[in-house]
Parts: sequence; C-alpha cells; structure tokens
Amino acid sequence: MDDKILTADKATAELISKAKNDGVETVWDRQQIMKAPCGFGEKGLCCRLCAMGPCRISPTPGKGAQKGLCGATADVIVSRNLARMVAAGTSAHSDHGRSIAHVLHMASKDGNYTVKDERKLLEVAKRLGIETENKDMFDLAHEVAEYALNEYGKPFGKLTIPPSVPEQRRKLWEKLDIVPRAIDREVVAIMHSTHMGCMADAESLITMSLRTALADGYGGSYMGTEISDILFGTPVARSTEANLGVLEHNAVNIILHGHEPALSEMIVLAADDAELLKLVKEVGAEGINVTGMCCTGNEVMMRHGVKIAGNFLQQELAVITGAVEAVVVDVQCIFPALPELAEAYHTKFITTSPKARITGATHIEFDEATAYESAKNIVREAILNYKNRNKEKVFIPGSKNHATVGFSNRTIINHLDKVVNSHIDPTGTFKPLADCLTSGVLRGAVGVVGCNNPKKVHDQSMIEIIKTMIANDIIVVATGCAAQAAAKAGLLSKDARRLAGKGLATVCELVDIPPVLHMGSCVDISRIMELVGEVAKLLGVDNCDLPVVGIAPEWMSEKAVAIGHYVVASGIDTWLGITPPIMGSEEVVDILTNRIEEMVGAKFFIEEDPMKASRQMIERIELKRRRLDKKMELKDLSMEEAAAAKE
Amino acid sequence: MDDKILTADKATAELISKAKNDGVETVWDRQQIMKAPCGFGEKGLCCRLCAMGPCRISPTPGKGAQKGLCGATADVIVSRNLARMVAAGTSAHSDHGRSIAHVLHMASKDGNYTVKDERKLLEVAKRLGIETENKDMFDLAHEVAEYALNEYGKPFGKLTIPPSVPEQRRKLWEKLDIVPRAIDREVVAIMHSTHMGCMADAESLITMSLRTALADGYGGSYMGTEISDILFGTPVARSTEANLGVLEHNAVNIILHGHEPALSEMIVLAADDAELLKLVKEVGAEGINVTGMCCTGNEVMMRHGVKIAGNFLQQELAVITGAVEAVVVDVQCIFPALPELAEAYHTKFITTSPKARITGATHIEFDEATAYESAKNIVREAILNYKNRNKEKVFIPGSKNHATVGFSNRTIINHLDKVVNSHIDPTGTFKPLADCLTSGVLRGAVGVVGCNNPKKVHDQSMIEIIKTMIANDIIVVATGCAAQAAAKAGLLSKDARRLAGKGLATVCELVDIPPVLHMGSCVDISRIMELVGEVAKLLGVDNCDLPVVGIAPEWMSEKAVAIGHYVVASGIDTWLGITPPIMGSEEVVDILTNRIEEMVGAKFFIEEDPMKASRQMIERIELKRRRLDKKMELKDLSMEEAAAAKE
Repeated sequence: MDDKILTADKATAELISKAKNDGVETVWDRQQIMKAPCGFGEKGLCCRLCAMGPCRISPTPGKGAQKGLCGATADVIVSRNLARMVAAGTSAHSDHGRSIAHVLHMASKDGNYTVKDERKLLEVAKRLGIETENKDMFDLAHEVAEYALNEYGKPFGKLTIPPSVPEQRRKLWEKLDIVPRAIDREVVAIMHSTHMGCMADAESLITMSLRTALADGYGGSYMGTEISDILFGTPVARSTEANLGVLEHNAVNIILHGHEPALSEMIVLAADDAELLKLVKEVGAEGINVTGMCCTGNEVMMRHGVKIAGNFLQQELAVITGAVEAVVVDVQCIFPALPELAEAYHTKFITTSPKARITGATHIEFDEATAYESAKNIVREAILNYKNRNKEKVFIPGSKNHATVGFSNRTIINHLDKVVNSHIDPTGTFKPLADCLTSGVLRGAVGVVGCNNPKKVHDQSMIEIIKTMIANDIIVVATGCAAQAAAKAGLLSKDARRLAGKGLATVCELVDIPPVLHMGSCVDISRIMELVGEVAKLLGVDNCDLPVVGIAPEWMSEKAVAIGHYVVASGIDTWLGITPPIMGSEEVVDILTNRIEEMVGAKFFIEEDPMKASRQMIERIELKRRRLDKKMELKDLSMEEAAAAKE
Repeated sequence: MDDKILTADKATAELISKAKNDGVETVWDRQQIMKAPCGFGEKGLCCRLCAMGPCRISPTPGKGAQKGLCGATADVIVSRNLARMVAAGTSAHSDHGRSIAHVLHMASKDGNYTVKDERKLLEVAKRLGIETENKDMFDLAHEVAEYALNEYGKPFGKLTIPPSVPEQRRKLWEKLDIVPRAIDREVVAIMHSTHMGCMADAESLITMSLRTALADGYGGSYMGTEISDILFGTPVARSTEANLGVLEHNAVNIILHGHEPALSEMIVLAADDAELLKLVKEVGAEGINVTGMCCTGNEVMMRHGVKIAGNFLQQELAVITGAVEAVVVDVQCIFPALPELAEAYHTKFITTSPKARITGATHIEFDEATAYESAKNIVREAILNYKNRNKEKVFIPGSKNHATVGFSNRTIINHLDKVVNSHIDPTGTFKPLADCLTSGVLRGAVGVVGCNNPKKVHDQSMIEIIKTMIANDIIVVATGCAAQAAAKAGLLSKDARRLAGKGLATVCELVDIPPVLHMGSCVDISRIMELVGEVAKLLGVDNCDLPVVGIAPEWMSEKAVAIGHYVVASGIDTWLGITPPIMGSEEVVDILTNRIEEMVGAKFFIEEDPMKASRQMIERIELKRRRLDKKMELKDLSMEEAAAAKE
C-alpha cells in the first residue's frame, strides 16, 4: 500500500498514515485484503436470481457454460443485474423524497418543521395544478405533500412530468412508452420482470430500466429537491470551507453523514440551543462545530454554509482524526465499518433512521414528530463525549479550502440577471447562459457528479476532469461527493476562475460566480436536469441538442446507475469513469454505448482514464455545437421564410 | 448424466432420453456444463451491491477477507442478499395481484371479463368495509378493484389485514412493527435499506423482510386469489388428469405456461370458439387440447379442469414431445431456453406479456381490453401450426394420472358440511376439521408447496414427503408445482386414501376428498393461510399453536423465499428442502432457524433429506399437539372456573 498513491487529497493522505500508526483499518486496507474482485461478478456474468444456481457464464465465448440453468444468456443475466441496480438506486433516492414529503405533510406554523420558502411552495403547487388562491400556506403545503406522496403509489395514470422537460423530449418518452407510472410501481415492475423466468431480453430490460430511472429523476429525486427547498429554503450563494481541516481543536465536533436533510437541519438548529451551549461551556469546550459529509453535508452546506469535513472515502478518516465527538448518520453511503472504528477512538457513532440500523451503533431514533428534542438528545450525547477526547490521539490536518456554494437555479438566475440589459432582454431567465452557449463564449457545460471509489485514486479523476473542462471554457456544475472534491481542491472559490479559459473566466467575473457551481446533493441532480431543460426550451431545441454532457468519474453506488440512466434518457451523454458490471455482454454494451442513442439521442461512454474521458467530452461538446449551429441556422432560415411568406 | 437418477417421474425420464436422441439440450445438460456453483454465492457471501466490489467474504473465519470494502460483514451481506430475494418474490406475486385487480377494474357485463362469483365479490367487499347495499354489481367490482389497487400505493396507513388472521397474531405483528404499509412501498423500503451504506444489521434486515413478505402473503397474493375467484369463479371440486400423457396425437396441443389467469382464462374460452373449431377441422386435427404448466396451469385446472401437462422442470420436455403446436406464456418461471428449443421442433413459442419479453419468441401482446380477440389470434397461430408437426418426431409418454382438484376453502367447507350433525353443530365452518385435529383423528396438517429444482431428483422429495405425511394421518394441502407433482403421482385421486393412515383414510372417505388437497397456484397459498387462521380462530388459539407445518421440498424461486417468510411470520414452522444462500452467516442461520421463534412463534428448518425432514415435521407436529392439548385443557379449566365463579 505504501507505494501506491491512494488519494489526490493531502488531508486524506495524512490520515491514512495516521490510521496505520494507530493500527486501525480503513477501506484501503480492506481493499488490499480483498485482492482482485471476482471476474464473473465484475463482468455482470453471475446470476443469483434463483436457487437453481448461482450460475456463472464463462466470459470466453464457446468455452464453458454459456447459459444459466434456465437458459439465461450472458445478455439476459447482465441486463437483469443492471436493471436491479437501477431499481435499487431509484428506491434509495425516491424513498428519501418520500420521507421529505411526509415531513412536509406534518409541517405547521409552530411545529418542528415549517415552510421556509413560500414562493417555492407556490411554484410547485402551480406546476402540479393545485389551486393556490386564498389558501392557508400550511393547507397548501399539506396538499402538495399529498400530491407528492400519491406520485409514489397512484394506481392509474403516469408520473406528473415537470414543465422543465422540453415538449419534444416528453413526446419521445411517450412514444418509447417510458413515461413512468407510479414511482414505487416502477421499482416493483423491475423486481418482478427480473424474477426468474420473466423478462429475458436485454433491450426490453434496458428500456424498463430507463422508465424506472425516469421515475427517480423526475419523480423521487425531483420531489426530494423541491420539497426540501420548500421546507428548508431554496439555497442562495454563500461561503464555506471544506476538508478535514474544518474540524476544531477546542470545539465539540459533530459530523453529519448520510442523505436526508430532515435530521441534519434539526441538528444544525439544536447546535444553537442555549441550554446546550451552556452545557458546552460546562464541559470546557469553546463551541459546537457541526460539519457535514456526503449529501446530508451538502444539504446543510447549501442552506446554512455548514462546513464540509470531506467526501465518501473520508468518512473513516474523520473518526481517525481523534477529534470527533459524534458521527451522526441517517441513510445511504455509511460504512458499516464505522462503529468498530469509532470504538478505537472516543467517537460516538449514532444511527438515527429505522431504515439504516447498523450493528454496533448507538441508535437514537430520530422522530420527525419530536424532531427538535431528538436532535437535542443527539447533540447532548456529543457534548458529553467531549471529555473523553484524548488530545494525544488528535490530529487535525491543515488542509481546508474556501468555497462559494448554494447554486440553486433561482440563485443562478439571480446572478445572471446582473448581466441582463433589461431594456432588451427579459430578467429572471437563463437567457444569458443560453446566449453564452450559442455564441461560444462558453463552449458547453458538464455535470460532474457521483461518489468516490477506491478503484481510483481518491478525488483525482474528478479534479483532473474539472480542471480540464474549465480550462476549455466549459462550465462545470457539480453535486454530491464530486462537488465536495471540487470544494476541497479550491475549485468552488471565485478565485478558481484563474484556471478557466478566457470565455468562462469572463463570464465568472461578470456574473460573479466560481467556474464550478455546487448545485447540491445527489438528489439535486434534478436541479441540473431543470437547468438543462429550461435552456433547451429557451432555444427551442431538445436537451440532446445542447453542448452538455455528464460524468461520474468515481461512482460506486446503485444510485449512480439510476442517475446515469435518467440522464441518458433525458438526452444527455454520460461518461462513467468506473466500468459498470456489463462487460460480460456484448449486446448490453452495444445498446448502452451505441444503439441507445437512436432511441433517446444520447448514450453512455465508459472511460476510466480521466484525460481520455475529458478529450472525448470536449469532442462530443464540439460535435453538438456544430449540430446545434446548423439546427439554429435552419430554424432562423425557416423563421425568415415564414416571415417572408407572411409579407 | 446416464448414471444419475434425475427424476422420480417416468414421463420425464423418457423425454430426457428423447432429448438426448434428438440432440437437444435440457436444464440437466446445462447443469452438467455449469459444474459446481460458486461457493461464495451459494453461501450468500458475495456482495455486488456497489461498484467498489464485487466483494466476497472468506467462508473460513479469520482467514482471508472477513469484510467487504465498506466494512459489511458476512452477516450483513447474507441478510441483505436474502432481503432482496424477499423483495423480488413479493414483487412477483404482488404485481400479479395488481394485474388481476386492473382486470377487475375493467370488468363489465358484456365485456371480455365479467364477475363470475358474485358471492365472493360481496364477501370481499364486506371484509374491506365497502358498502354493498343497492349497488350495481360492476360498480361494486370496480370499487373493490380500486380499494385493492390502493393497497399497493396508499401514502398513509397500513395494509388491510384479512379477518382470517387471529387477533393474537395481528397484535403480535403490531407489537413487532411488521404490519406492512402499502405493498409496493415495502418492496422499495427493502431496496433502499439494502442499498450501499444503509441497513447493516442482520436482525433488522430480517425483521424488514418479514414485514415485506407479509405484504405479499396478506396483500398481493391474497388479493390475487380473491380477485381471481371473483372474476373467474371460486374453484369447486372437479376431476382432471396430469402429466405429459395428457397431450394428444390428433389434437392441436396448446400449453399454457406462466402465472396470471387473465390470459389463460381467455385462451380456454377461445379454444371453444366456433370459428376456430372450424379451422381445426380444416387443418385435419380432431380438436384443440389446451393443457397447463406451472401456476397458470393450476389456475385453469382449478376452475375448468384443464389438464396439467407437467410442472416446472417439464417445460422443456413438453416441447421435446414434438406434439405441441404452441407454448403460450405470460410471466414467471419460464425458461429463456424455450425459444431456441422450440425452433428445433415445430412448436411456436409465444410470449404475451410486456413484463416478460423473451429474445427469440413470437410476441403477441395480450391486451386485456381486447382479450378475447388476442386469445383467438394466439389459438389461431397454434392451429395453423398443426400442419408443421412432424409425426415421426412425436413421442407422447403414456404416463398420466387422475386427480380431484379445486379445493378452495368454500369447497372444503361444503365437503365438511356433509359430516356435520346440523342439530348439534353449525354448518359452513371448518369446525369438523378442527375437531378432527383436536381429537387426534388427524394428527396434523402440512402444506407442501413450491417449485422443482434440478439440485434434487425431480419430484422425488415432494412425493416421498407427501406419502410419509398421509401415512401418518397428517392431511396434506398443496399448491403450485408441488401439487402438480402430487397429481402426477396419483396422490390427488380419492383412491390415494389407501396410502393414508386409518384416521386420515376415514376422514377422506366420510368427507369424500383425497388425502392431498390441491388448493391452487402459488399465490393461492393465501387459501392455506386463510384455512389455518380460521381453524385457529375456531379453537381460540393462534396459528402457531396448531399442529400445522409447511414445506417447500424443491423450491428454487425468490417467490418461495417471500412465501417462507410470510408463512413463518404467520406462526407456521417452515421446512426448506433446498439450502438457501445463508450458510455463510452464523447469525442469519441462528436467527432464522432459532431466534425467530421467540419473535413469531415459528421458525425455519433447513433439511435437504426428505425422510429426515418428514421425521422432523412429525415430531414437531406431535410437540405442537401436546402443547395444544395443555393449552385447551387450561382454557377449559379457566372457562369452568369462570362458569363456577359466575354461579
């Protein structure tokens, strides 16, 4: 392990060394012990969907088993396994969205949860066709919540597609019969069709996966974002800091890790509670330092500027600093390794969700109905644990970087309005951005999203790709752990425009933004979808006509697989920096990286080398630019002709 | 393969030989090519839930990887994998129930689908609390359908538990918090909680699995049965025949294979269509011989006496007879090997469901709205294919056996009424059965259910177990492929009572039933649950107090895993004749085969040897008898005391 570079992040490297000195285990140690992953599993060639098996298909055509016992081929097995990944990813995001909808349903004027963003509530109600006139704000909130909850289980009809989806795209989905029905139903549909003896056709399975993924992207995730904004406020630009250097020597350090903002919002509130602050003094600390990790971190960073301690692969390292009184988690992306690790230090590892009990954790169930009290109990545990910190074991790395975050679409529009000549152009739209794209001041846009994965040098691919993009006048929007990698590398600071090409740098200066916009957590990729759709609509084209691509350079979770599918179904080419478990099927590879483009106007690219991926993305963006130019010319021409014909 | 006995069924053995002569491949050939299954997968120790892996835990404690990269232990990995099996099985059954509910929603007086069993409609409406007075039958049907469909997705509240569940059991479920919410939601909940970084605690995962499985057993499956009865009639006792010998030399042979009765009912109807019968004459055949396989076969056998061509492992052999014009399939348990095999003969392999497209099949989508026309088109294809039959390639085995089938609970009660002294006892209840059980004329009851699995000699375990049970005065109820094994072995004929012990033989004679009651398809295990619950209620005890057990001797599907979980959660001990992929976790094995009894009063037994399993079941039944005797005595005593106290 010594010889191998594991991370592009200095703080991470320092703490991996400390882990070794402390004699504790990290994900990189376990990776070494695991040795090479199973070749069948890695290629998707292993089927465990019934008890006649497990079956595994020989990766060598003509040699060994070419079919499972039931007769399932490599194509069938690979596409079924992939579909189940989409179903699981969709479930995770959508179940998160459901929780938030339930919280909205209990929002009240004097309760734990209230409506922070009435404007957003009105906007959402309107798009759902809910009457807003003369209605009590909370009655309206509950109506919106009920509408949202019904999207999960309505027995008839299709998902309400947001108006940000261009008309052409919506019609294409209808034609392909991939407009989702109820969100949960689509998950169940995949689980049924991948059951032994059901769907056994790669193309059909992939088509189903697209439909289910759309239920995530425009259902569960989309509502997750919208309702979080209603409850906790639509993010605005604000400053923060990122990396393990944000931990403090003399404060009670609490790490919020997971995904759902319902918990983390309350913890942030409770950390300001007078009674608890008094207790802090009593234990001899100077304050409470709430910091975030993964997406629950992103949620509170976007809305409160809460500092980011790190991303996915740093969750163990935070404990290893020896300076953390409590790691408080809700759901998703939480290492089951944490309880044992926390015991090697003084850290309390606290689970809070009935959806994610973890053996060895202290479980303090977070009850939304008594949310503030629950949060206070959790924070109190952390404070009382401060006395157990062993200062000799503490090492807080020096690394941290400034970042400007909070780029919701409303915030982006507010920034764009600064450069609008309001005598000529409308305010309150993405038109300046669309103009920059068509004029070529910006060559394109790329969404850099997703996780960390120890198969890659931590953060390295994301940072390389982002740097290459901005240097080529391609603006970057980011979410999730990718956005945190960018924050730690200083790429979310306004200063980072010095790394941008001339066009992008100028835009950044005029609009007063960094070249990389942090748009939120993983469910907030819905913000990116909205942004893309609105720009396409402004130009009268479809998403797939825009010089816009997406990439998940270091993805690891099934959520990323669902995201990839809905992004491609939305017409946006998507690069995967980790090879998904599909290489065992030529047909599946051909569909996803080739034939799917005929269906939805976009496809997957699988490229592990970040520089090669960057070059491919730039090429693709330039190709799209040429096509868009032609399309716009033709459009102008036909408009001119129409005008001429009129005269 | 020559030396190994593959099947207990003569027709099957004969056709395996023919397959060899014909140079075509069957599941047993593929099993030989596959060699030993992966040891990690077989023990449940392989995790593919994120792209950091796949990870696999060494089965040797202390040697090799003991944790996945995230830190997931064997206990976590095994229980997550098992939970996903429950989610998939629940999805399959429940999605089937949903389809039937949608069909009920379109039922009309003059339409393709009507209401065959008004009494059942009224019963179901009543149990759901739907007002039935002065209502048009179809309006009521649609209301019931809507109620049912809402059970899949209602945002609030819990599943409506049928009144057949004893009060004690319902309260236990409430205490354990395993009363399901909406059916689909429970599937999504598992898919979310098994996502990377969520639930990492074996006991919590198994508890979740029980809740989801209950959504299957008392939600999706239960409605599947009830609504099928409303639409197509509650089964009554009728005669039929079973095994490949039911195919006919001079008729157009159609095999219905799959699970959902909406298609098969229409095919049965269409096979009597005058226009088509004319076409039959034109092609030189003597008639249309519709036969069934797997559960779609069971559905039409229970309601129309349609003959059974065979069970799960015979699906390929039916084609290999060379005498089948069309295999028409809907969903579940259909070998993807069939299209290629069918091409080696003249057989048309026709898929009909958008849920189960299969590469290489002729797809004629079955549209419920134009169901009869769709069915006619399918039957026409078969008739027109008769001319392509190569008589030299035909071999129809001689084996077939008579069977009396159709034992819905209403039919059982009707039979029991024959022995009721109506001056003393009420009619229309299971009381005579309960009396037989408490008196010891019957020692107990066993449900023999589930699939075939080539890991076992085809049908052998099921037949041995059933024979041992009935010889020991234990009445057998059966569904699915197990019931078909019994039918083929002659155990569903009334004559089979000569194989029964004296007590059971006497009951069979008096009540005029065979010693093995065919209660329907796999979803109809709900009938068994209802029967058990009603008997328990009659005796004022809980399910777990009855001398009743269940066994799936040759199971293979994820549906069986879901069934096992809801049967155990219902308080009924369940034997698995195939070892599930859990042996990699001592904790999971301990919970399922031991600790779970403290929770729900029943547990799993894993025993591959059918004779050993039989002995264990008899022991357990006798243990339950002793406990029940004591319980009933105490109850009598306390009632006497209460009476005495009153006086």
